Amino acid sequence: MDDTRNTAEDRRDDEIVETAARAAHVAAEIAEEHPADIAAALDEEEPEVASAVLASLPREKQIEILDLPDFDLSGDLIEALPDDEAIRLLSELSADRAADLFRWMEEPARSHLFSRLPPATQAELNRLLSWPEHTAGSLMTTEFVSVPSSWTIGDTLRHIRAIERTRETIYAIYVLDPATHKLLQAVTLRRLIIGEPQQPILSAAPAHDPITVDPLMDREDVARLISKYDLLAVPVIDANEQVLGIVTVDDMIDAIIEEGTEDAQKFGGMEALDEPYMEIGFLAMLKKRAGWLSILFLGEMLTASAMQHFEDELERAIVLTLFIPLIMSSGGNSGSQATSLIIRALALHEIKLGDWWRVALRELPSGFVLGAILGTLGMTRITIWQLAGFHDYGEHWVLVAATVGSALVAIVTFGSLIGSMLPFVLRRAGFDPASASAPFVATFIDVTGLVIYFSVALAILHGTLL
Amino acid sequence: MDDTRNTAEDRRDDEIVETAARAAHVAAEIAEEHPADIAAALDEEEPEVASAVLASLPREKQIEILDLPDFDLSGDLIEALPDDEAIRLLSELSADRAADLFRWMEEPARSHLFSRLPPATQAELNRLLSWPEHTAGSLMTTEFVSVPSSWTIGDTLRHIRAIERTRETIYAIYVLDPATHKLLQAVTLRRLIIGEPQQPILSAAPAHDPITVDPLMDREDVARLISKYDLLAVPVIDANEQVLGIVTVDDMIDAIIEEGTEDAQKFGGMEALDEPYMEIGFLAMLKKRAGWLSILFLGEMLTASAMQHFEDELERAIVLTLFIPLIMSSGGNSGSQATSLIIRALALHEIKLGDWWRVALRELPSGFVLGAILGTLGMTRITIWQLAGFHDYGEHWVLVAATVGSALVAIVTFGSLIGSMLPFVLRRAGFDPASASAPFVATFIDVTGLVIYFSVALAILHGTLL
Repeated sequence: MDDTRNTAEDRRDDEIVETAARAAHVAAEIAEEHPADIAAALDEEEPEVASAVLASLPREKQIEILDLPDFDLSGDLIEALPDDEAIRLLSELSADRAADLFRWMEEPARSHLFSRLPPATQAELNRLLSWPEHTAGSLMTTEFVSVPSSWTIGDTLRHIRAIERTRETIYAIYVLDPATHKLLQAVTLRRLIIGEPQQPILSAAPAHDPITVDPLMDREDVARLISKYDLLAVPVIDANEQVLGIVTVDDMIDAIIEEGTEDAQKFGGMEALDEPYMEIGFLAMLKKRAGWLSILFLGEMLTASAMQHFEDELERAIVLTLFIPLIMSSGGNSGSQATSLIIRALALHEIKLGDWWRVALRELPSGFVLGAILGTLGMTRITIWQLAGFHDYGEHWVLVAATVGSALVAIVTFGSLIGSMLPFVLRRAGFDPASASAPFVATFIDVTGLVIYFSVALAILHGTLL
Repeated sequence: MDDTRNTAEDRRDDEIVETAARAAHVAAEIAEEHPADIAAALDEEEPEVASAVLASLPREKQIEILDLPDFDLSGDLIEALPDDEAIRLLSELSADRAADLFRWMEEPARSHLFSRLPPATQAELNRLLSWPEHTAGSLMTTEFVSVPSSWTIGDTLRHIRAIERTRETIYAIYVLDPATHKLLQAVTLRRLIIGEPQQPILSAAPAHDPITVDPLMDREDVARLISKYDLLAVPVIDANEQVLGIVTVDDMIDAIIEEGTEDAQKFGGMEALDEPYMEIGFLAMLKKRAGWLSILFLGEMLTASAMQHFEDELERAIVLTLFIPLIMSSGGNSGSQATSLIIRALALHEIKLGDWWRVALRELPSGFVLGAILGTLGMTRITIWQLAGFHDYGEHWVLVAATVGSALVAIVTFGSLIGSMLPFVLRRAGFDPASASAPFVATFIDVTGLVIYFSVALAILHGTLL
């Protein structure tokens, strides 16, 4: 008994020694690197090693690393630390990053750590955590530079030098009314640097009003604004024109890339994963994919109903079935082209909700011409196969070719029109137009496409094959 | 004769007076706005009015407006100006913007204006224009701040004050070796501001080496680097470590958004438009859409060939045709889910080319489970319809249900696998993985899906229906 206990203890001791040695080795290798590179290196290590390396780094560097929005280990590392150490780090992190960490932290660690923070920090974090995800409010940080309009450029520069370390950016300075604290102007550090120190701060302000955003503005709109005005940060103000915080350009880039991923995954016909492909759990991924796949499947079942409805015609003219996949997919393809065009144009505000009829007037002739091109290809194929003897489409092959050609014109026109209108309908109904995925559009058009195909066939082949 | 000439002249005079009046009105209204808003307002006006308004604005504002990367009128406005005026503006624009304008300008205006620029500007523009599109070289500007490492912080700040107006950004300062002009460090204005003026400039430098990019690096990779290291600008250096220029974060945001649009349009199954939906010409848009649509159509023709191959079976078991659209679309949907996941994960470098087998090992079981879910749904539907008397699938309906269920498992597994491998194959073959559009994947899987369906049917229904 004693022996085994000793062995187990020895093994634990060995492990501790090994972790410490590995940590010292890693720390020596990466200490001089860029914080983002240190974070990437820590991501590769075991959590115990990573946490030991982090502890061995200078305090300032610890904060810099934990502050990186892409550093996924931050939460785990902080939870692994002794309480005092964790509280100290959380208080020194930028407010938006600390709020993010609490957003993802699990109970009971979350409540436990939160309750031990200074009351002022708790209040600040609660304010940040109250904004819905993906809004300016949820992205903003409260660590910005603001000065009263009564100050000079020199006063402001002195103030910036004193508080630089505690602010996320010092490149934009917000000038407030000394009495009401309303936002008067946004001044760039660039203008301050070239200004005369004894001049009032407002002399460095631009002629136009400051660009501001509402805390509930969607991150896509904030990104567009920052891009349009080439800003490094944009202030978030409330109804009383008080500055609640600022959204910085680097947080915005991360948000745009994340938004792009979400849109791409939705357009591919699934829920956004919210996690890297290789890191998300097997079951979590299945859940995100199975939902939409089943809904699409149930929708597509209508094609079976449509086919059942035309079963008599199918039996009489089996030749018609040969072209069902070809015709259905052409409708779906033209529809998903149109949908992807319009989703993107809506997202970039190239077109507005009210432009739907302008789009419809463009898509109708586009769809018609595209359908005519595919229809011609289809009829040519049937003619060549028939005349060259590759396949016999029966005595009425000319009528069959005419059916396929006409159906393609009708379905591609219909597909382009439906595909382009769907994002408008979704936006109008309050949904994200990006939910109109390619598979969704294709499913929608498949069912109607079948009906169109058989209706055209009935019209053209009535009295001959049907 | 005299009378009509007078009338025509009068009318022209009237028009000129009208344009001038409208221009004065617009100028008065927008002069105090942000340059980006003035640009937006000018975009709404007739070119003559816009050009008159621009001419009436202060020189500095003219440059600010023409410098905006989104201001599409810049080229037209400059071409409309007298030569001297155009040359003067082009020389004062930021180098990257001037290069962009020349890239888009049409002959003969292009050569004519270019030849009249000062030789130094010509040489600089030629260097910028020589880099391929979408590379760091084509995005960079040459207007950055660089100082020799022998200077102090105070020297550098004085230098910045003197040259601020001619630089795109002053927030990153590049410190060069005085002798070789090699890049030694990148210092932020933030560190300078809080430093002691008499200290050497390198005392404000970070411990890590500067982050740099190669002029041929793709804009997506530059964006990822800027985002990873939270930079406001990144220097572009050649093989001799000389700084060629810098790429700034605001140019990068525009590039990321453009890249997102291109990817979305490609995934929708078409060539990237490169122009806003409402602005691109009808024929130009048709060309971008018809190409892929026709290629997909030709590919989908193979479904007709596959069906012809199984025509005997179809005639004997018409009930099988009822489920063709359902089964085909399920394969396509699961495939486009997998493709969109992998394209994005590759673009974000979450997975590497060498990870293909890891992905395959994940997609095989995922596909199997998803297929089992859809297969169960399909068999349930057939059973309910049969037992409730909605439709009669014949005496062998149990076998038909088994065929549909098994085919779904096989096709969804196959679709997920093919869909996830396709981006790897494309990347390996040197293509953009984003060219694997949803319609492309669906078409590919449709053909194989039909073959799988009929093979499963032959195996299960042999001796009964077939």
